[in-house]
Amino acid sequence: MLFDFKKKAASLLESAGISINGSEPWDIQVHNEELYERTLRGGTVAFGESYMDGWWDAEDLERFFEKVLTANLDAKIQTLGLLPYYLKSLITNPQKGSRTYAVGETHYDIGNDLYRRMLDRRMTYTCAYWEPFQELPAAKTLDEAQEHKLEMICRKIGLKKGDRVLDIGCGWGSFIRYAAEKHGVECVGISVSKEQVRHGNETRGDLPIEFRYQDYREVNETFDHIVSLGMFEHVGVKNYKHYMEVVHQCLKEDGLFLLQTIGSPVSRRSTDPWIDKYIFPNSMLPSMAQIAKAAEKLFVIEDWHNFGYQYYLTLMAWYENFLRAWPELKGHYDERFYRMWVFYLLSSAATFSTRINQVWQIVFSKEGVKGGYKSLR
Amino acid sequence: MLFDFKKKAASLLESAGISINGSEPWDIQVHNEELYERTLRGGTVAFGESYMDGWWDAEDLERFFEKVLTANLDAKIQTLGLLPYYLKSLITNPQKGSRTYAVGETHYDIGNDLYRRMLDRRMTYTCAYWEPFQELPAAKTLDEAQEHKLEMICRKIGLKKGDRVLDIGCGWGSFIRYAAEKHGVECVGISVSKEQVRHGNETRGDLPIEFRYQDYREVNETFDHIVSLGMFEHVGVKNYKHYMEVVHQCLKEDGLFLLQTIGSPVSRRSTDPWIDKYIFPNSMLPSMAQIAKAAEKLFVIEDWHNFGYQYYLTLMAWYENFLRAWPELKGHYDERFYRMWVFYLLSSAATFSTRINQVWQIVFSKEGVKGGYKSLR
Repeated sequence: MLFDFKKKAASLLESAGISINGSEPWDIQVHNEELYERTLRGGTVAFGESYMDGWWDAEDLERFFEKVLTANLDAKIQTLGLLPYYLKSLITNPQKGSRTYAVGETHYDIGNDLYRRMLDRRMTYTCAYWEPFQELPAAKTLDEAQEHKLEMICRKIGLKKGDRVLDIGCGWGSFIRYAAEKHGVECVGISVSKEQVRHGNETRGDLPIEFRYQDYREVNETFDHIVSLGMFEHVGVKNYKHYMEVVHQCLKEDGLFLLQTIGSPVSRRSTDPWIDKYIFPNSMLPSMAQIAKAAEKLFVIEDWHNFGYQYYLTLMAWYENFLRAWPELKGHYDERFYRMWVFYLLSSAATFSTRINQVWQIVFSKEGVKGGYKSLR
Repeated sequence: MLFDFKKKAASLLESAGISINGSEPWDIQVHNEELYERTLRGGTVAFGESYMDGWWDAEDLERFFEKVLTANLDAKIQTLGLLPYYLKSLITNPQKGSRTYAVGETHYDIGNDLYRRMLDRRMTYTCAYWEPFQELPAAKTLDEAQEHKLEMICRKIGLKKGDRVLDIGCGWGSFIRYAAEKHGVECVGISVSKEQVRHGNETRGDLPIEFRYQDYREVNETFDHIVSLGMFEHVGVKNYKHYMEVVHQCLKEDGLFLLQTIGSPVSRRSTDPWIDKYIFPNSMLPSMAQIAKAAEKLFVIEDWHNFGYQYYLTLMAWYENFLRAWPELKGHYDERFYRMWVFYLLSSAATFSTRINQVWQIVFSKEGVKGGYKSLR
């Protein structure tokens, strides 16, 4: 044998405190010995695909990922595998024009049934807020944690009755419905998922809200306030400046813009290849430096709230809902999808429990709020 | 006449809503007609020097500066004047080695008497906090606003009795005294001003605090927590990364680092030339992008609190104290110093009332606080 893949893999795993076929809940149980070569040759894509194919398991998969991420194993097995992705990121603009709608089809249109069962009752597909906020107590359920998050956003932008609000990447309308119901505002939500727009317009009732199948670059109106929750991850670093320019153009002079996004600890130009291939094509986590730079000469950054750990709690709640719903869902999805989805939820959860990734709510104003913006917690 | 300097100056001022010898409190009263040519040839240095020489006045000088800054006149008269400063910033590292102590001599050693009368009773030479914070009510006096700011810092880093804390750029020891008195911690404060260190060690009494005449690059110990308040403005963009590395090295694994600094709206490499020449030699305001980039791979940014407007209130309080104390101070300083100091305080105040500059308190952790950091307001 020219190279002992198993020995190399065992040594890498050992550096993370993980044993092959060990007895700890975070140890890896290997069902196919070809796993080592496949992963060391193919990086995280191959590792994730091996899981989808049933080649390995871990009793506590989330803790397994925590250990892998803390020991930086994902980067260590990636070195060769990532190069083509990096080169692609330099040459192409994967979030441009016709490619914009790809994530809508791949991820958000895979079936409202799945999301209805996994998410809260408002179908909010972004990080919830479980901590106390102002007089609101700590949330006990996912439904509460999402409502508190929505309320927090409304207060941070100081919504007043009659305001007109744009939501860029509105999902199933969780925010715009809440804001219209509770704060008496009018809302326009845009989405690149046809399913979301169809579902939104069918169920909006008498609320003064409107769903549009539209890319953010096509908006050509002004609004009192703008929010964008969990959509910036799809924008791409080459478009951050233009995104900020579009928001600036669509925002009234004294309006506020609230951006909620997952944050990367370092400035990168691409995402994890497995996530790119199976979950969020063309997605990319922004760094604080990239966002701050894109906002220069356009916005004053009034507030920067980091609550990354809350996404660990949220993803675990989604995971539990997914497990609970699986018996009823399994007619529509195969076993490989099930394992893909578990891999997605738990590897994501681990990036937050380890505090590697962050969640940010950032409030921007065009000229600086006169007399100062009061940041709320 | 080849070029009508007065006409050009009048037109620039008019674009900012300012009339020459007009009757509004923010209008400029010109006592020497050579002002126009001197300023248009020499930029903000010449404009400030003209004020120091008594060539012009404005009844409400702060509002005059607000209008100048809002119309961007400082940049417009700077175009030619700034080039040498920009080139210098590329070639040299003005905050390096022997130059480090220059600001200590130029600015902080000009006389404790002046600062004692201008500042609060603890001699806190950084932005105060006048807003309510947690259960603390809005401050009514400068003394209160500074104590609330100091208390806010102690709470944000979660000080516990017996902790050992480093203060980089400790001034006259305002923070380390407060922390030792109220929270029972031990503190080391470092400063590049001999006057501050001498004064600090002479008056520390029995408090477990120590003042050192030392540059931050010379610290070689670890601390439970580190703060740095109003000192980062002297570090210089070429040294941000190294500064963060030094702090990282001196901070225990689960410690927190709180940085308070004035923030620039854009990423620059130099400061205003008049400020550089007369007030803070080799100073430079960091942008959010520059700080975030310098912290990458070293720190998780747990909280970013922007309260820039509070510095407008603080500077106006210092200005009032200075005016009140002048009759007793004037024996030690000449009229030109008086005008220089007024120009410094009120032009700075205007950069905050216009919301162009910000004040940031940023909390950093090395590995991310387990279970998430709770940001306090």
